Amino acid sequence: MECRYKIILASASPRRKQLLEQIGFEFEVWPSRCEEIITKTIPKEVCVELSKQKAVDVASSINTYNEEHADIAQPQDLIIIGSDTIVAVGNEILGKPKNEQEAKTMLRKLSGKTHSVYTGVTFVFMASDGRVGEYSFFDKTDVSVYEMSDDEIEEYVDTGDPLDKAGAYGIQGYFAKHIKAIEGDYYNVVGLPVGKLYHELKKIVG
Amino acid sequence: MECRYKIILASASPRRKQLLEQIGFEFEVWPSRCEEIITKTIPKEVCVELSKQKAVDVASSINTYNEEHADIAQPQDLIIIGSDTIVAVGNEILGKPKNEQEAKTMLRKLSGKTHSVYTGVTFVFMASDGRVGEYSFFDKTDVSVYEMSDDEIEEYVDTGDPLDKAGAYGIQGYFAKHIKAIEGDYYNVVGLPVGKLYHELKKIVG
Repeated sequence: MECRYKIILASASPRRKQLLEQIGFEFEVWPSRCEEIITKTIPKEVCVELSKQKAVDVASSINTYNEEHADIAQPQDLIIIGSDTIVAVGNEILGKPKNEQEAKTMLRKLSGKTHSVYTGVTFVFMASDGRVGEYSFFDKTDVSVYEMSDDEIEEYVDTGDPLDKAGAYGIQGYFAKHIKAIEGDYYNVVGLPVGKLYHELKKIVG
Repeated sequence: MECRYKIILASASPRRKQLLEQIGFEFEVWPSRCEEIITKTIPKEVCVELSKQKAVDVASSINTYNEEHADIAQPQDLIIIGSDTIVAVGNEILGKPKNEQEAKTMLRKLSGKTHSVYTGVTFVFMASDGRVGEYSFFDKTDVSVYEMSDDEIEEYVDTGDPLDKAGAYGIQGYFAKHIKAIEGDYYNVVGLPVGKLYHELKKIVG
């Protein structure tokens, strides 16, 4: 995307970085290190809340940086992208499993059913003349999983794949064979709804 | 997949090979070299017809090989997987574009609309005791594409991505930002419906 803004991705996720690169974005990665504070309960609100915290956290650190380096910093218009992905069965949010046992329990909840994956995205705009703005949205994808036997759940957990992933699975790997169908953006499940992100950004920056 | 069958993929597509590897299959690649003969007109029948031609072509070459090397060949149960992916707007099938102009025409047909991607799959079974069998199915995924401007179409064609792809796009690359949503298996659009393939195979070989 050619634009006068410098884009900053407020995430340490290699999957999100790869997705933005895939659609041709030029950007820098400044991971947010803020503590996540959840005050909402509905999945679509939680993911937006967390995406906002991440983007705002990085925006504040840039403010501090600019003040400290006011003599050398080049004024530039910035867009900071914060993002958070949540896996939910109904309104129950499944986080990252703490251990193999928890991974198995989560996978049993997903087996033979349709669940939803939400990614919240927040853009924080910081113009070099001091104007600032914020814009949030989310995307939802429904994912239908085949019935999994205990052996299949065990086999998947043994791959080690579930442990760093919300909902205990990654759609982009070995788990693909257990997915019946999705409805929505596939990349939203991977971690970033690149279609909606590109179009929301286009609406704003032209 | 642990099974007594040796699996052979009758396709030269690196994407299909990568997808089977991703879900943990062990297999060999024996690309079919047969001329594709289309007698059907409906997309879901065409993709099955072509997948069958590919699997049967490789099966025949194995028969010939076994006869010629009867003294050294190890008898083994085989499953040959043939596969063909088709992009269709209604009943109009979009093949691989011959040049940039054709790619642009195809992309204009997809812009702002929902089209369907069909992959036909045929298993040919060859037991070492001489029994043979065939089984075909297809999977369909609907893909909704955002409205694309002429500039966006030109920009995508300039990447060179469309030229070796049915329908002039690859969902797994730069084009991802133009996809609004899909309904069905994502990997079916990439070239192999790995969820259905795994489950159909499981039903048969246990």
